[in-house]
Amino acid sequence: MAPKIVLHYLENSRAQRVAWLLEELGLDYEIVYYTRNEDHRSGPELKKIHPLGHSPVLEIDGLKLIESGVIINYLISKYDKDGKFSVTSEADKLAVDTALHHAEGSVQDDLLIMRITNKVRNANVSFMVKPVAKEVASKIDAGYPVPDLEVQLAYLEDLLAKNGSGYFVSDHLTGADFIYSYPLQLSRDYVNLLTEKKHPNLFKWLKSIEARPAYQTVGNKTKGLKGVF
Amino acid sequence: MAPKIVLHYLENSRAQRVAWLLEELGLDYEIVYYTRNEDHRSGPELKKIHPLGHSPVLEIDGLKLIESGVIINYLISKYDKDGKFSVTSEADKLAVDTALHHAEGSVQDDLLIMRITNKVRNANVSFMVKPVAKEVASKIDAGYPVPDLEVQLAYLEDLLAKNGSGYFVSDHLTGADFIYSYPLQLSRDYVNLLTEKKHPNLFKWLKSIEARPAYQTVGNKTKGLKGVF
Repeated sequence: MAPKIVLHYLENSRAQRVAWLLEELGLDYEIVYYTRNEDHRSGPELKKIHPLGHSPVLEIDGLKLIESGVIINYLISKYDKDGKFSVTSEADKLAVDTALHHAEGSVQDDLLIMRITNKVRNANVSFMVKPVAKEVASKIDAGYPVPDLEVQLAYLEDLLAKNGSGYFVSDHLTGADFIYSYPLQLSRDYVNLLTEKKHPNLFKWLKSIEARPAYQTVGNKTKGLKGVF
Repeated sequence: MAPKIVLHYLENSRAQRVAWLLEELGLDYEIVYYTRNEDHRSGPELKKIHPLGHSPVLEIDGLKLIESGVIINYLISKYDKDGKFSVTSEADKLAVDTALHHAEGSVQDDLLIMRITNKVRNANVSFMVKPVAKEVASKIDAGYPVPDLEVQLAYLEDLLAKNGSGYFVSDHLTGADFIYSYPLQLSRDYVNLLTEKKHPNLFKWLKSIEARPAYQTVGNKTKGLKGVF
């Protein structure tokens, strides 16, 4: 019997890549859609699904999975019957696992900090305080997340260049491509640190995944794909 | 032949739990120790080991592993010959995997932001700017990382209470305990949100792992264990 899959999907969030993978695997799934409040945060509704209140949560026959890396790994190990997105060698498995941890544990950290400093920069405060708030935000950015993200983008550009197949691991889409898609889109569209000039391989890779029919289907099903996290 | 293991260890960093696991597994390993600069950052030396410049990096017979969750998983799957820290059921494996991702992908995010706001709060700026910088830092803390970390600590306290064995998964130490040790120590000692009164199970769990001989050995080998990250 086909599994009953429900994706709890916060708009413009990390959930978009899980939906993309579900589409690529050809699985039937239902989307429960949550909007962000004025503060770009999720409301209390997601906490009713899982106590952490984070998105995505993926329910499969009642089993609730959290953490994008876990969800991506689980879906590919259970439902990739033709091995389209799987890897077999130990080295490739380690590379995919490293990507699943690195994307969420490192790249996304920098983006999260920049989201917060951007909020500080645009905060509705008095004209006397505003310049100081802006300066604090810019100092934080320059001190940590911007240089760190630049190092990480250079590393990922190099990974693609060295692998040479157009994918991060092996010669086809793997969990590494799914997990990196979201933070790399944000790096290009939101913080403008990923550019065609500096990162030709990453730029081309993003274009190629965005051109996939399964990827576009997600945009149609979820009121669009937008890198505001 | 015994593997040649080198742990690249930045002082007072996430590397301490990898050293702890190596001790628990009874493996021979060498520590290469790196100090933090005045800004509490690592210098350029770690970049010579791995382009990301993060800590820990674990070298095993020349293979360089990054990301704490990957390293912990790898060590247990390869070297836990007696199954002391391993799990067998699919549900337990999923629970450990979720913990490995959750600790680094979610809990550590909040702590990282609070480290940065703390830096802003203590920045050496003029007395006119200081109150504004402090207010910005406190507003960031109150808006995101503090309430989020409180939700996560409540969730982890509940996990321990429900499991009832004194460990996060199964009835013995697993990768989940190793990965959570560091962010939970920081939550208790650095941001003071984990307290005996609010989190009796987490508090007791921390005391029990800190009392282990293998854990104390790490402190002796690495000039101490200190939750400044």
